[in-house]
Amino acid sequence: MGRLTGGDPSLLRRINSAVVLHALRTAAPAASPTLTDLVKVTGLSRPTVEGVVEGLIDAGLVVEAAAEEGEARRQGRPARRFRFRREAGHLLGIEIGPHRIAALMADLGGRVTGSAAQEIAATAPADERLDVVLATVSDLLRRSGVPRGQLRAVGVATPGIVEADGTVRLGTALPGWTGLPLGERLRRSFRCPVLVENDANAAAVAEHWKGAATASDDVVFVLAGLSPGAGSLIGGRLHRGYGGAAGEIGALHLLGREATPEEVLSTTGEPLHPLDEAQVARVFALARAGDERAEAAVERFMRRLVHDVAALVLALDPELVVVGGWAAGLSGVLGPLRAELARYCLRPPQVVQSLLGEAAVATGALRLALDHVEEQLFAVESTVTARR
Amino acid sequence: MGRLTGGDPSLLRRINSAVVLHALRTAAPAASPTLTDLVKVTGLSRPTVEGVVEGLIDAGLVVEAAAEEGEARRQGRPARRFRFRREAGHLLGIEIGPHRIAALMADLGGRVTGSAAQEIAATAPADERLDVVLATVSDLLRRSGVPRGQLRAVGVATPGIVEADGTVRLGTALPGWTGLPLGERLRRSFRCPVLVENDANAAAVAEHWKGAATASDDVVFVLAGLSPGAGSLIGGRLHRGYGGAAGEIGALHLLGREATPEEVLSTTGEPLHPLDEAQVARVFALARAGDERAEAAVERFMRRLVHDVAALVLALDPELVVVGGWAAGLSGVLGPLRAELARYCLRPPQVVQSLLGEAAVATGALRLALDHVEEQLFAVESTVTARR
Repeated sequence: MGRLTGGDPSLLRRINSAVVLHALRTAAPAASPTLTDLVKVTGLSRPTVEGVVEGLIDAGLVVEAAAEEGEARRQGRPARRFRFRREAGHLLGIEIGPHRIAALMADLGGRVTGSAAQEIAATAPADERLDVVLATVSDLLRRSGVPRGQLRAVGVATPGIVEADGTVRLGTALPGWTGLPLGERLRRSFRCPVLVENDANAAAVAEHWKGAATASDDVVFVLAGLSPGAGSLIGGRLHRGYGGAAGEIGALHLLGREATPEEVLSTTGEPLHPLDEAQVARVFALARAGDERAEAAVERFMRRLVHDVAALVLALDPELVVVGGWAAGLSGVLGPLRAELARYCLRPPQVVQSLLGEAAVATGALRLALDHVEEQLFAVESTVTARR
Repeated sequence: MGRLTGGDPSLLRRINSAVVLHALRTAAPAASPTLTDLVKVTGLSRPTVEGVVEGLIDAGLVVEAAAEEGEARRQGRPARRFRFRREAGHLLGIEIGPHRIAALMADLGGRVTGSAAQEIAATAPADERLDVVLATVSDLLRRSGVPRGQLRAVGVATPGIVEADGTVRLGTALPGWTGLPLGERLRRSFRCPVLVENDANAAAVAEHWKGAATASDDVVFVLAGLSPGAGSLIGGRLHRGYGGAAGEIGALHLLGREATPEEVLSTTGEPLHPLDEAQVARVFALARAGDERAEAAVERFMRRLVHDVAALVLALDPELVVVGGWAAGLSGVLGPLRAELARYCLRPPQVVQSLLGEAAVATGALRLALDHVEEQLFAVESTVTARR
């Protein structure tokens, strides 16, 4: 509640406005509240509610429901009804991945209204990748008929350690990513706030919002791949860590006693590109068919994954581990992981597969944008901890 | 603020009482506030403050300062001054360790007023250990002249995973500890609340209170030994984990590819008892003297410690790592640990040695007792997250 204290003269007005807007937003769609309803729900006086509602109508955030929806006039003058205009603004959630750029659009209620995606080479340089991001967004805006000026916030999620200002401190998965002022670069193309987040962190938020973790507030999301990353929710809030690097457990192999990610699944001794998902899937298929070298490679892969996830579980003791990323869908991953964790962890967590699949990261980016707008409009706590 | 909402009819009175008590408690010792001061500081009306202060005097928590301290009467009648009676109650912090039982006593202001400690064999059974705990406490109470009935809360810290009700879910370091209803057993001997906590968690709280971590809210405390445990503060609050098992990183070796704790520092091939600190110190001394087998053993030990601490750091990304426990004091531990973490962690934390040393665990237990009393008396947030 820190931001609601202090010497701001318009504080009370802003709080009242947020309270009324929140009541309108959470009302059932079929039951637009009257002024009397709002007085009852908010505990504010009738003149205060009237003043606030007029202000919200002027701002375009609220509309008179009965008039707009052409409700038949009954006997006498019916009480005016009001509803929140979800359509008063739009949000974007963007995933910038190694192979794919994906974007989701939503209204101010968080309802997804459109999507776009485009393939990209893992080797594409940073400028080219950003060009594809902007082209994907332009395409989505055009197809949706939404003017760029109606965007209220943009969330972006990408591999790497992301600073509070949106700079990528370290990002080895994408060429030219380390040191890139990603937030600053993207802010040139939008007139609204741009929030940048690590991809596994965003996916954790997404699974909690509308995926496999809606029932738990203490969650580790593992983006399973050759070098796993993770995002954690503690008490329902994203745990970024002091420097935004929490969950970068894939670096444990750097301690030098284990194979590099490229060697782990190699069946030939030649390094395997960590992002070559098709090749990796082939190794798993070969192992299932009984190929001995592939079996050994899969065993190395699983041992690494179990070790990394066990380290996260022992450090954090979550209620639930959600496994996503391309490896989560391979048969022979989730079962063994669950069994090994149950065997070795002192208090084994539940282990489930991501429900959102490849939509998880963009969905999380969208949720971060929605959090930002809700903080502004409704003065409510977001699902995300305060940035430093 | 959860506990300040709801339909409690005495709610306002309790809040006002807490607000006044808090103002009295945080006043400088030399400047006991007058009623006018309290009205100014709290924003409450004068009659409300007067009523609350009378109630607090009746409860024994507040006393008129001027009268008690024999302040010389000046011209006219001086304003009455009041002070919080820190001496109105007492708290205990107890460490139940493998070798040692230690207890600290403090007043309601958290000022330590007495201590006691007793050696015990690592092999002592649970009943004998509990008898020594009670004898140590009785001795401390007697020497301090404090009647048992003046104890307001008792904090207890011990190795193992501790459930919310004070039962030890898993505790392999002490004989008979796993499954022991430690809280229930100790509550029979006290008429006040007894809080039980994991030892590394308590030590983390202690270093944040008055040790090496007072300046940071994002801290990992490592109890360095043959099987390291850890406690974490996130945003200044203890992170227990969903089942109280957060930080039990020593279990990583269970994954089966590493030596057991007993083998790590062995120079003979014979297992070394993990709690035989004298023997362990001798191995470090031999290594410094150039003994090759001891050097190899120390290298194995450091590799394990670095790996476990790195796993914690990668999972949590703390600002600060505080290293305590017996191994923290051995020369050749802190320097190499710091260097290896700086080399391998993506965002290396500061690494410092515990300031509280062997007092850390009991001090943390004391802080937990103080937190409990402050929550009741002052309705303030504690340093500890809500228990489930």
